[in-house]
Amino acid sequence: MAAVNLKQLAKILNLSISTVSKALRDSHEIGDATKERVLAKAKEMDYTPNPFASGLRRNKSKTIAVVVPEVANNYFSLAINGIERIAQENDYHVLIYLTHEDIEKEKGIMKHLENKRVDGVLMSVTMNTSNQTHLSDFQQKGIPIVFFDRICNEIETAKITTDDYISGINATKHLIENNCKDIAFLSLGDEISIMQKRKSGYLEELHKNNMEAKPERIVKCGNDDEMNYQLVKELLTGKNKPDGIFASVEKLAITTYQVCRELNINIPEEVKIICFSNLETASLLSPSLSTITQPAYNIGKTAAEVMFKYLDKNKTYIPNENIVLQSTLHIRESSQQIV
Amino acid sequence: MAAVNLKQLAKILNLSISTVSKALRDSHEIGDATKERVLAKAKEMDYTPNPFASGLRRNKSKTIAVVVPEVANNYFSLAINGIERIAQENDYHVLIYLTHEDIEKEKGIMKHLENKRVDGVLMSVTMNTSNQTHLSDFQQKGIPIVFFDRICNEIETAKITTDDYISGINATKHLIENNCKDIAFLSLGDEISIMQKRKSGYLEELHKNNMEAKPERIVKCGNDDEMNYQLVKELLTGKNKPDGIFASVEKLAITTYQVCRELNINIPEEVKIICFSNLETASLLSPSLSTITQPAYNIGKTAAEVMFKYLDKNKTYIPNENIVLQSTLHIRESSQQIV
Repeated sequence: MAAVNLKQLAKILNLSISTVSKALRDSHEIGDATKERVLAKAKEMDYTPNPFASGLRRNKSKTIAVVVPEVANNYFSLAINGIERIAQENDYHVLIYLTHEDIEKEKGIMKHLENKRVDGVLMSVTMNTSNQTHLSDFQQKGIPIVFFDRICNEIETAKITTDDYISGINATKHLIENNCKDIAFLSLGDEISIMQKRKSGYLEELHKNNMEAKPERIVKCGNDDEMNYQLVKELLTGKNKPDGIFASVEKLAITTYQVCRELNINIPEEVKIICFSNLETASLLSPSLSTITQPAYNIGKTAAEVMFKYLDKNKTYIPNENIVLQSTLHIRESSQQIV
Repeated sequence: MAAVNLKQLAKILNLSISTVSKALRDSHEIGDATKERVLAKAKEMDYTPNPFASGLRRNKSKTIAVVVPEVANNYFSLAINGIERIAQENDYHVLIYLTHEDIEKEKGIMKHLENKRVDGVLMSVTMNTSNQTHLSDFQQKGIPIVFFDRICNEIETAKITTDDYISGINATKHLIENNCKDIAFLSLGDEISIMQKRKSGYLEELHKNNMEAKPERIVKCGNDDEMNYQLVKELLTGKNKPDGIFASVEKLAITTYQVCRELNINIPEEVKIICFSNLETASLLSPSLSTITQPAYNIGKTAAEVMFKYLDKNKTYIPNENIVLQSTLHIRESSQQIV
């Protein structure tokens, strides 16, 4: 005798398929009495959920997915290590998906994950993720998302970040204290909230010091390394170049080093540099690179801990929560005034 | 009316379940006549394979898995980018799994993948993968594996590597030409074939130059960064230290730089360094680092191309093939004699 399927189970219970499905998913839309009745009948009829139907919490896949822009980046690879540590403790597998900063790819991955057996998704969105319909649609399927680093404010769930605004202020303040009079900000796009916060910190500190925030000093870089190189080269060519650079992400600092080498610009004598970075070789560079170092490993670890707190209770709904972990300023040669 | 399952299909055909399963998987163990009979009957009876049964090539998941030791490593992150490029062209998703050099974790992942719908696996084994039963067992399930970089010679399939032996010779030769008289080799374990090849190149070149290969000059490092630091520190402490170091992997060169900084040892005056590396910042280090740069992106790309060549033909059996892509020697400051 074949076991009943979802349709048959719904008929026996005299409920709609959607109601039974939601009850099995522990949706908040369904009352406790109905949930209990559905679960009891499902057990009685030996109902085996279709393993490809998503969000059936009683049928855990013991798998979580991590969706990030790239791994050729120390921040994300460290965050993944933090996630893996917690997943391992919980006897879970981790699947990693890369979006390569492509919003269409991100949409495709979320579509793919809907039909896969994953219990939850930890993610950092692409630099171009402004519309979030694909993410709210995904949540509707009953699979929880937790954001880290590149979050979506509009989506209700837990979000783990660092203190981007304060760090933006501190980095800019440090450059000003080291006698920079004309500081440029290298941004990665301008859609995502962490960029806006870092930039706000930069603008706020300039304002506080009565320094003009010239629009041409905010350079909007992107995912094309060659284009970024050209943009930074333009910025640093000619007499009217800035004397300080605040790079919002690691790769733009490396690009700046490469451009300075090509143009024979001395760091820090002619231009001082500081950046958000988890580069392992920061202290070994010539000159050593000043960084705002994010607690990447702990951010990943915390995101996973929050996810498992809810998965353990079979909850697919995670309420809004903002967890902010502090970054640390590491002052090295690249940003210091030589006296 | 419910569709037939594998058991019912086998009964109708008067064949064993195993034979029908193998026929559907296009196994070379089954003759063409039987395969045709099975496929025709499966079609007639509207047989839908269980999506969790592995290796049913007719029911493609459009997903491949990549299993690698880590991503906090430029080689693997570049190789993954090469794989993703080809997967994208083929409209496939890529799942990435990390073993963290843990053979038990690798076994667990392969077990997990058996039950997942992936069409193929591209992998680089852990530094401790000496026994390969879990990999040959996996192949038996009808899911093809292609190895890249860290391969298993015993497993029959395509293997993509770089010219590790020749590169080992070239790196050692370069140090000797730059007047090194006592060269140490930093190994990552000694189980995997690429390590053995790099070491063989080193030993061969010493022998050719009538230089003694002292056992204590071969330092077996591992996955514990602190232990590696201590091992390199011991090597470089005291008067009897080597004047050349050939690091078999990138992270051991970074460790060597850090140790030299702590012990105030000048590179390249007191000790010269060269290593296998895809470090983006190699030329920006102080001093700039000489590297044997592997074509990481192309190795990943080639591994994926080979996989898709067979997947396109619905073949799950990939014959033995060794594809070797050349590495390039980049001589920078760290290994050169100062005249």
